[in-house]
Amino acid sequence: MQFSAQQIAQLLQGTIEGDANVCVHSFAKIEEARPNDLAFLANPKYLPHLYTTQAGIILVNNDLVLEKPIAATLIRVEDAYSALATLLNLYNSRQKPLVGIEQPCYIHETATIEEGVYIGAFSYIGAGSKIGKQTQIFPHSYIGANVTIGQNTTLYSGVKVYHNCQIGNHCILHAGVVIGSDGFGFAPQTDGSFQKIPQIGNVILKNFVEIGANTCIDRATMGSTILHDGVKLDNLIQVAHNVEIGENTVIAAQTGIAGSTKLGKNCLIGGQVGFVGHIVVADGTKINAQSGIAKSITTPNEAYGGSPAFAYKENVRANIVFKQLPDIEKRLREVEQQVKNN
Amino acid sequence: MQFSAQQIAQLLQGTIEGDANVCVHSFAKIEEARPNDLAFLANPKYLPHLYTTQAGIILVNNDLVLEKPIAATLIRVEDAYSALATLLNLYNSRQKPLVGIEQPCYIHETATIEEGVYIGAFSYIGAGSKIGKQTQIFPHSYIGANVTIGQNTTLYSGVKVYHNCQIGNHCILHAGVVIGSDGFGFAPQTDGSFQKIPQIGNVILKNFVEIGANTCIDRATMGSTILHDGVKLDNLIQVAHNVEIGENTVIAAQTGIAGSTKLGKNCLIGGQVGFVGHIVVADGTKINAQSGIAKSITTPNEAYGGSPAFAYKENVRANIVFKQLPDIEKRLREVEQQVKNN
Amino acid sequence: MQFSAQQIAQLLQGTIEGDANVCVHSFAKIEEARPNDLAFLANPKYLPHLYTTQAGIILVNNDLVLEKPIAATLIRVEDAYSALATLLNLYNSRQKPLVGIEQPCYIHETATIEEGVYIGAFSYIGAGSKIGKQTQIFPHSYIGANVTIGQNTTLYSGVKVYHNCQIGNHCILHAGVVIGSDGFGFAPQTDGSFQKIPQIGNVILKNFVEIGANTCIDRATMGSTILHDGVKLDNLIQVAHNVEIGENTVIAAQTGIAGSTKLGKNCLIGGQVGFVGHIVVADGTKINAQSGIAKSITTPNEAYGGSPAFAYKENVRANIVFKQLPDIEKRLREVEQQVKNN
Repeated sequence: MQFSAQQIAQLLQGTIEGDANVCVHSFAKIEEARPNDLAFLANPKYLPHLYTTQAGIILVNNDLVLEKPIAATLIRVEDAYSALATLLNLYNSRQKPLVGIEQPCYIHETATIEEGVYIGAFSYIGAGSKIGKQTQIFPHSYIGANVTIGQNTTLYSGVKVYHNCQIGNHCILHAGVVIGSDGFGFAPQTDGSFQKIPQIGNVILKNFVEIGANTCIDRATMGSTILHDGVKLDNLIQVAHNVEIGENTVIAAQTGIAGSTKLGKNCLIGGQVGFVGHIVVADGTKINAQSGIAKSITTPNEAYGGSPAFAYKENVRANIVFKQLPDIEKRLREVEQQVKNN
Repeated sequence: MQFSAQQIAQLLQGTIEGDANVCVHSFAKIEEARPNDLAFLANPKYLPHLYTTQAGIILVNNDLVLEKPIAATLIRVEDAYSALATLLNLYNSRQKPLVGIEQPCYIHETATIEEGVYIGAFSYIGAGSKIGKQTQIFPHSYIGANVTIGQNTTLYSGVKVYHNCQIGNHCILHAGVVIGSDGFGFAPQTDGSFQKIPQIGNVILKNFVEIGANTCIDRATMGSTILHDGVKLDNLIQVAHNVEIGENTVIAAQTGIAGSTKLGKNCLIGGQVGFVGHIVVADGTKINAQSGIAKSITTPNEAYGGSPAFAYKENVRANIVFKQLPDIEKRLREVEQQVKNN
Repeated sequence: MQFSAQQIAQLLQGTIEGDANVCVHSFAKIEEARPNDLAFLANPKYLPHLYTTQAGIILVNNDLVLEKPIAATLIRVEDAYSALATLLNLYNSRQKPLVGIEQPCYIHETATIEEGVYIGAFSYIGAGSKIGKQTQIFPHSYIGANVTIGQNTTLYSGVKVYHNCQIGNHCILHAGVVIGSDGFGFAPQTDGSFQKIPQIGNVILKNFVEIGANTCIDRATMGSTILHDGVKLDNLIQVAHNVEIGENTVIAAQTGIAGSTKLGKNCLIGGQVGFVGHIVVADGTKINAQSGIAKSITTPNEAYGGSPAFAYKENVRANIVFKQLPDIEKRLREVEQQVKNN
């Protein structure tokens, strides 16, 4: 199956520059593409490849200015990255979704499985749980008792969902994700030991939430740990008990959020960031990778960096001087000496 | 089932302030509680909610001073957080523990399963392994050959325990925990490749150890990686080969401990901390989140922060000046100029 | 079964110092060894134990200079650590590899299983996948559709390999490893939500690759995420989509590598390091633990530290001055005052 530049441009409402009859049948990165591939250019870092790529068709942004002629046919669109997403989704939709129940699996007699569901072999569906229409549960998934999973949601292999948790529609949970493990709560005792605080709350994932591989989301002590609509978490992230994450907030890999902290909506959080517990972070906050957020952020739409973090741009400047510290100390010593000698 | 303030106060040996006949039937966070809920106040950050909560009963510390009258009935106790733990444990104990063996599962003919054990479907118990009384092993757990697990221990879904490891009594291992994977040891070869050092030791978890979801504890090269009584690890922690962690040490999420390092007892370690290998950390050490511990700590009961870490309070002060570095460099330049001009 | 110093020295082409007839039957760490154990000394930190150990035999480097007489028999070799690896491999090779298919398991009728393979109970082999000779797949492993796994490779319990991925020969994947989960790619939409970029590439692990427990390697958006021959990854590492890691590069636990970054060969990367996306790191680069690599490294064989990272030795010096910052600020204030007063 192949498509011409003409067909693709029509689909994306894009403008063709070059031969409209060129055809492609697959996708490739711009630096690896061959004549039968469609490539894209969104990140300016990859601009040099535009002039050397063998790709047959390249999706580019409307505002791209060519510095010299190129061989490929261009399709100009408002947003090349979104247009690529549209094409890839179309490409993927040719695959029929999995349906049916593979054996052996364990489905409790009181569980409810709606129509069009896939349940892979060795999956476990606990008492009273409910799996919504067209949801796909890959092999080795564990759904504890009284769990609700919505429609068109995908749990990849080995996802573990503890009892009483709720997962919405159109969510994707990658392999090894743990939802609803106990929050980390212990009361110190006078003999130095710790008494466990039982965690009787749950986790609620709203709709269109995506969770990366081996990420862990703890259940609330009481009440719920909540991820709102459109939250996207990368791999190996830690979300502690009673955390709340606002709509469309995106968090990169290996970040950790301590207990009861509330992140606003539309935040962009880098990788390996740490948030202390019991703070509030305003909507639209941006946090640079490896930062440590030690107190609440109340002004929306600001950027932060460093550990402990402060304003991103100031942090960049402080880091530049940090490199010069041995030299600064030397200069200070010299000026001290000069003052002393005067 | 509901309880009156009178009954709860009696149980906790607390003092009632307000209506002793008020009844509750559930628990809730102070900021979300309704009239039928019991709430608690331990962290002073939540003090403002005391005066607005709808909770029927609130557990508070004896030393709390009210600034204005409140609607709820107070129960004053020595330690509200411990009292909450006691109540929640009571609440949880109403649930009967799971018992019995779900099918299909794989239990080697030479394995020993004591009485009162639960083994979930799709669990695997290897040759020569032994599961103690009242221990619960949730679905998809893997117990390799010659593993010993004590009594009243819980392994949630998908825990993996490699061969020869030992787990004590009253331990809790959350979903996705890996116990006994190979330590990371390779001998560099002259051609640039690495020869694997086989890891022939094991992991020993003593009693009352709790391990968070997806945490990994590597087996020793030789001898044992050991977690002593009462150690509590959060999620996504890395414990390398031949590490030893002393009694009642508590470690927050995503911390990593490199090979052969020995942590003392009663330490409190924040999240995302890193310890280099082959060091010793004294009893009662406190480490701030995201710190890097690059050398041994010999004085007990001190607090550290930063990467590389030094005394916590000094680190706080250095971080304050760090923010001013661009300004400091400017001031230095000015004073240099002035001295030059004099 | 036991061996004499004579036999061991012969095997390792080493030189005996002491009684050649001493026999050992096991291995132990130098600080824990008993008379029947062989110990080794490679890390100079453990030198003091040389004079107190009860070990019967100790492997040491040729260049070790004794400061006083010792009780044990020494075997001197070029590289004690490599010699230990050789002995341990020999010791381990006495165990017969697992062979055969345990029931129940799920093997798609179109999958190819070569001879000498072990497939543990509850493992899942998808359509069109191929498992090479002598490969061992432990219980609860998930192999999606059209996966190729080479010969003499080991997948420990609960490894998850998504569709279309390729794993070479002599690889070891520890429990909970995830290979081929979706890369983290989303196109921002004007309403603040994110459109998923389908990830249609795969992951390729070449030969002699070892991956630690619960480490995640995402599939490429297009093309492949590639780990070349001899790459060793520790536990809980994040490898994002389209990353490439060169031959014999070794990475310690909890490090994260963002999308499309290319690490050279023979690099040594510490734990908890972060790499931003779309950069290139030169061959032989060494990165200190907890560093943040924010831009490409073009000169090979250099060492870096800090976040953001710069030359390792300069970073060490800057960190020393960082501790003195409050004092430096005070000195600056004093000199300012003096200049003002002059």
